[in-house]
Amino acid sequence: MCTQTLSRRAALFGGAAAVASVAVATPAAASGRRGLLDLTYPLGPAFPAFSPGEEAALRTVATIADDGYYMQEWTTVEHIGTHVDAPVHFTAGGRTAPELRPDELIRPAVVVDIARRARHDADTVVTVDDLRAYERRYGRIPDGAAVLMYSGWGAKAGDPNAYRGTDAQGTLHFPGFGLDACEWLLRHRRIRSLGVDTLSIDPGVSESFETHLALTGADRYGVENLANLDRLPPSGATVFVGLIPYEEGSGGQARVIAMR
Amino acid sequence: MCTQTLSRRAALFGGAAAVASVAVATPAAASGRRGLLDLTYPLGPAFPAFSPGEEAALRTVATIADDGYYMQEWTTVEHIGTHVDAPVHFTAGGRTAPELRPDELIRPAVVVDIARRARHDADTVVTVDDLRAYERRYGRIPDGAAVLMYSGWGAKAGDPNAYRGTDAQGTLHFPGFGLDACEWLLRHRRIRSLGVDTLSIDPGVSESFETHLALTGADRYGVENLANLDRLPPSGATVFVGLIPYEEGSGGQARVIAMR
Repeated sequence: MCTQTLSRRAALFGGAAAVASVAVATPAAASGRRGLLDLTYPLGPAFPAFSPGEEAALRTVATIADDGYYMQEWTTVEHIGTHVDAPVHFTAGGRTAPELRPDELIRPAVVVDIARRARHDADTVVTVDDLRAYERRYGRIPDGAAVLMYSGWGAKAGDPNAYRGTDAQGTLHFPGFGLDACEWLLRHRRIRSLGVDTLSIDPGVSESFETHLALTGADRYGVENLANLDRLPPSGATVFVGLIPYEEGSGGQARVIAMR
Repeated sequence: MCTQTLSRRAALFGGAAAVASVAVATPAAASGRRGLLDLTYPLGPAFPAFSPGEEAALRTVATIADDGYYMQEWTTVEHIGTHVDAPVHFTAGGRTAPELRPDELIRPAVVVDIARRARHDADTVVTVDDLRAYERRYGRIPDGAAVLMYSGWGAKAGDPNAYRGTDAQGTLHFPGFGLDACEWLLRHRRIRSLGVDTLSIDPGVSESFETHLALTGADRYGVENLANLDRLPPSGATVFVGLIPYEEGSGGQARVIAMR
């Protein structure tokens, strides 16, 4: 590779070099209040599944004592833990996990905070009014963004029944995105994805999964069970969605890291 | 969040904002020759395992026709497909997958090309001489880098026997990093990780896994089965290693994306 080519690349992607130097020069800060922020839950059998019985399962298949190396084997549905819903999850003929391009997985993020309302109403949803209020305070949601709901639900993630909000009738109760808000964001802000700190982009009470249908029908993807959204600024961050490209995948586990 | 705080963040992380604007403004270019490059293989049952029989397995557990949504379930060892070896994989008491910090997973990358030699010698390894020759041509390997071996082995990934290079005696043959090169990089360049476009950071003929032992013993990690390294410049790129944080994980699947 000739030096001229490298220089041109360096000039074009000065941003990448700047990011690298931030990460390398300030490793302590990079994991702290500024810099990089992990939005991913560790994946294990205790993490709440949307449907009980679908929790991740594991077994140890090799140990250093017996085999010279250590390794586990996992059995996981594509929708456990911090994960992506690809378009094909709810839309026949939609794109699969490997068909989501890298440029779709690295996006400017905005965080819409409905935690105060969610504290008193587990069935609340992000509305168009919330989005308008967000924009009055923080500015226009950029085209192509990842729009993330912060509901405070992460505090319940250690207790599957509380996180699912299951009532005596077996109905789930947790916040999500309302259909109107999803359609407004698709039409007027041409968003790339929706993300939530709950089990589903639709609220738990939904029986029709209308937000899933609208989002995946528009060839966009969702991210569920995001952690640490309280530590992300309302605007200005970039999210990296490290989706595992499972063949024919309806989505799958993802390592999601934000750069603040 | 007050505007002043946001502005301070924006100034500190101008790099992140620049990256976001590159990705958003030029989605076509971002997936093409410049910009973002996927270093990850799609994960499926045909992808070669280090040990035959350890291939990824899947079953469809829900379909849109029957259930209203589509979902697969996977059974995978932590070391199939494009994946990370965490320190604990070969070093007792070493760090597990969730213990690798975000700032360790986003690193400047250098690519050491031994493809010409590997074409005639499947047992060849990256040597200290290769590293010195690299630095004479492309400049000093930065501290904390991800050092990636390009051997051309990706051309064989569609044929498990060719990719493993198994001979009549059952011995594997594919390139890797030599112990001397690994130790030199740890000591003199304080690298963060080694990556390869083969099944193992040790060459296939290795029986002692001495490069694994040196690397994980130094609390560093490996990345195996990287794709598309021929399209990455020798220096100047940044890699994002989206490792799934499997609990107590010896490593695990990762979505690896480079920014050129």
